[in-house]
Amino acid sequence: MLEIRASAPGKLILHGEHAVVHGKLAVAASLDLRASLVLTLNDDAKVKLSLAELNIDIDFPLSDLPQVSAEGASSTQLDQPLYQAIHTLVAARDELSEGLESRRFAVEALLYLYCGIVKATSTQEQDEQSPSGVTINVKSDLPIGAGLGSSAAYSVCLASSMLALTRPIDAANAADLDAINAWAFLSESIIHGKPSGLDNTISCFGGAVSFASGKFNRVSTFQSLEVVLVDTGVPRSTKALVSGVRERKHEFPAVMDPLLDSMGHLSQTFLDISQQLAETSDTDPLFTKLETLMTMNHHMLNAIGVGHPALDDVVRLASSLGLAAKLTGAGGGGCAYVLLRPHASEDVKAKLFAALKEKGLRYWTTSLGGAGVAVERSDANQ
Amino acid sequence: MLEIRASAPGKLILHGEHAVVHGKLAVAASLDLRASLVLTLNDDAKVKLSLAELNIDIDFPLSDLPQVSAEGASSTQLDQPLYQAIHTLVAARDELSEGLESRRFAVEALLYLYCGIVKATSTQEQDEQSPSGVTINVKSDLPIGAGLGSSAAYSVCLASSMLALTRPIDAANAADLDAINAWAFLSESIIHGKPSGLDNTISCFGGAVSFASGKFNRVSTFQSLEVVLVDTGVPRSTKALVSGVRERKHEFPAVMDPLLDSMGHLSQTFLDISQQLAETSDTDPLFTKLETLMTMNHHMLNAIGVGHPALDDVVRLASSLGLAAKLTGAGGGGCAYVLLRPHASEDVKAKLFAALKEKGLRYWTTSLGGAGVAVERSDANQ
Repeated sequence: MLEIRASAPGKLILHGEHAVVHGKLAVAASLDLRASLVLTLNDDAKVKLSLAELNIDIDFPLSDLPQVSAEGASSTQLDQPLYQAIHTLVAARDELSEGLESRRFAVEALLYLYCGIVKATSTQEQDEQSPSGVTINVKSDLPIGAGLGSSAAYSVCLASSMLALTRPIDAANAADLDAINAWAFLSESIIHGKPSGLDNTISCFGGAVSFASGKFNRVSTFQSLEVVLVDTGVPRSTKALVSGVRERKHEFPAVMDPLLDSMGHLSQTFLDISQQLAETSDTDPLFTKLETLMTMNHHMLNAIGVGHPALDDVVRLASSLGLAAKLTGAGGGGCAYVLLRPHASEDVKAKLFAALKEKGLRYWTTSLGGAGVAVERSDANQ
Repeated sequence: MLEIRASAPGKLILHGEHAVVHGKLAVAASLDLRASLVLTLNDDAKVKLSLAELNIDIDFPLSDLPQVSAEGASSTQLDQPLYQAIHTLVAARDELSEGLESRRFAVEALLYLYCGIVKATSTQEQDEQSPSGVTINVKSDLPIGAGLGSSAAYSVCLASSMLALTRPIDAANAADLDAINAWAFLSESIIHGKPSGLDNTISCFGGAVSFASGKFNRVSTFQSLEVVLVDTGVPRSTKALVSGVRERKHEFPAVMDPLLDSMGHLSQTFLDISQQLAETSDTDPLFTKLETLMTMNHHMLNAIGVGHPALDDVVRLASSLGLAAKLTGAGGGGCAYVLLRPHASEDVKAKLFAALKEKGLRYWTTSLGGAGVAVERSDANQ
């Protein structure tokens, strides 16, 4: 029995959040909390999706799916007629009318990729003879809406598994990765409107990426870093935070411009130091620098108005244990990360975890800069 | 009976601390916590000083004081032979051998100004006929070593009272103020080694002063501001903090240089807004800006490494009441100030004071930018 398993990581912004909106450099890396997908075939001639984290359990008869033109079969851009047909199909389903809007988007993305990749490549003869349905189960370690790229990890899982259904896919092959990434970007476009493409690129390729003015550069020498990711549980609006910074820049340009400059330079300094980390075994002095940069950037993010006392509490707790932390992403709540040095003291870690538990905060010990998408096809009959 | 009363204010750095060390603009204003001095004559032919805050109660026979040359009688620079003679005299006194070094310096400054101003202008005949001693009592509202210009306020009191002993002194007269300021600077040189002259200038003239690269500009339009000054009670070393910033600048120039630039521009923006305050009655929007600038600067000072959790606590407390606060001076402990708008809610103030009391913190409600030195000579026999 055919089974395709795919998994893909989230992403974490190390430095440069907000500054990147104003043309400065930012750095993000893959976050080894992953979305995982299992695809099997079914005899019900249906596309079935189960996505526990969004409380989605839905299916669509294959016969309801729209026809796919040459444009719909291409990963270069979203085919509007195909998308509109899928949108109409999904909008009609009562199961998706409540809860997060992203529940509908997640289903639309699935159907779009199914149509564009699988349906478009199957011949009419195949369709009529053996109309196998697909059953897709997705689970995710990633908190949703926390700026950690959960939708990109989902999109990359979808794209890679659909492609693997039509032909052999090797996650070590550059052309295959490009194909996965292109389809994942379309999925992200459905989910987010106008994504930068950063999240799916990191989720697909893993490692770290520096980005500025819409351009990405993969950081070839990036050394994996251990972090404790902490979710403050404080909700926030990324949009409101971004526009708050823009207003403050408009009100105090002479103060904000050099401050944002400083944040961009800090990203570059971080990259320089991570380059040095790859070239030496004496890493302690470099980690001291990385820690100083994190603390500085956290305070600068406070200065531009995107802090929150709950984030400061994490930074202060870390600092009391000799560790550095900073907020990541939009700020105003959401997540912070604490850097762990290699061979960090077990005692210190235990104290950190105990204190986080006591505050009732969710946290994950995980690594940054690790592998991207993984995809595996097996057939139990073989 | 002759009595001279003098008082002089401390100073508070509003913005630009630390940045000013690196050539950026800073702004300071007089702080209406004052040192007060009462000078009377005595028949014991002694110079007597009582200075409660430094636990000083000491006297010197007039006959022990060194001779004064023309150089010693001049306020343009410290006369080294005179200073050395006084230094030797003071070093011999066991009462001053313990406690703060500033206890000795305070006595040296007193004797230097007495010799340079009073002794130098009395004729030998006067000396022999009526060798009246002087009794000086000093009290101060200003915490010592908190970066609030307590020594400058003391120096200005000394200089103005000594001058008033020799001739009529009018604190509204520019030449008299210049004379007081010049002598106070010599006193500060004895106490601090190489003072910038900022503290004595503000203490002497009152109001606000902007300064950069060793140059002062009095801010003619400065509007008095109400603040709550809070002493965290956390001791710190200004020297270590200043050198920590220098090291960080050396280590991360690309990050620190624009950050310090931003702080300098913030001082200028503050000045622009206080200028606008003088020109409108609709001050609320301007106070909102002043509050934003304070919060931003506090976080930037954290970013350059001169923060302290106790200072953050004050900022957070203020913020929880809708008020803005920032550290002032060297940071790393010491004082923070909370800005009060005109007609600030009594309820909010009461909550602030209650919370500060609960934390066991000393605080003072006071104003910035008020009057400088005051000096008054009275003779009960007249």
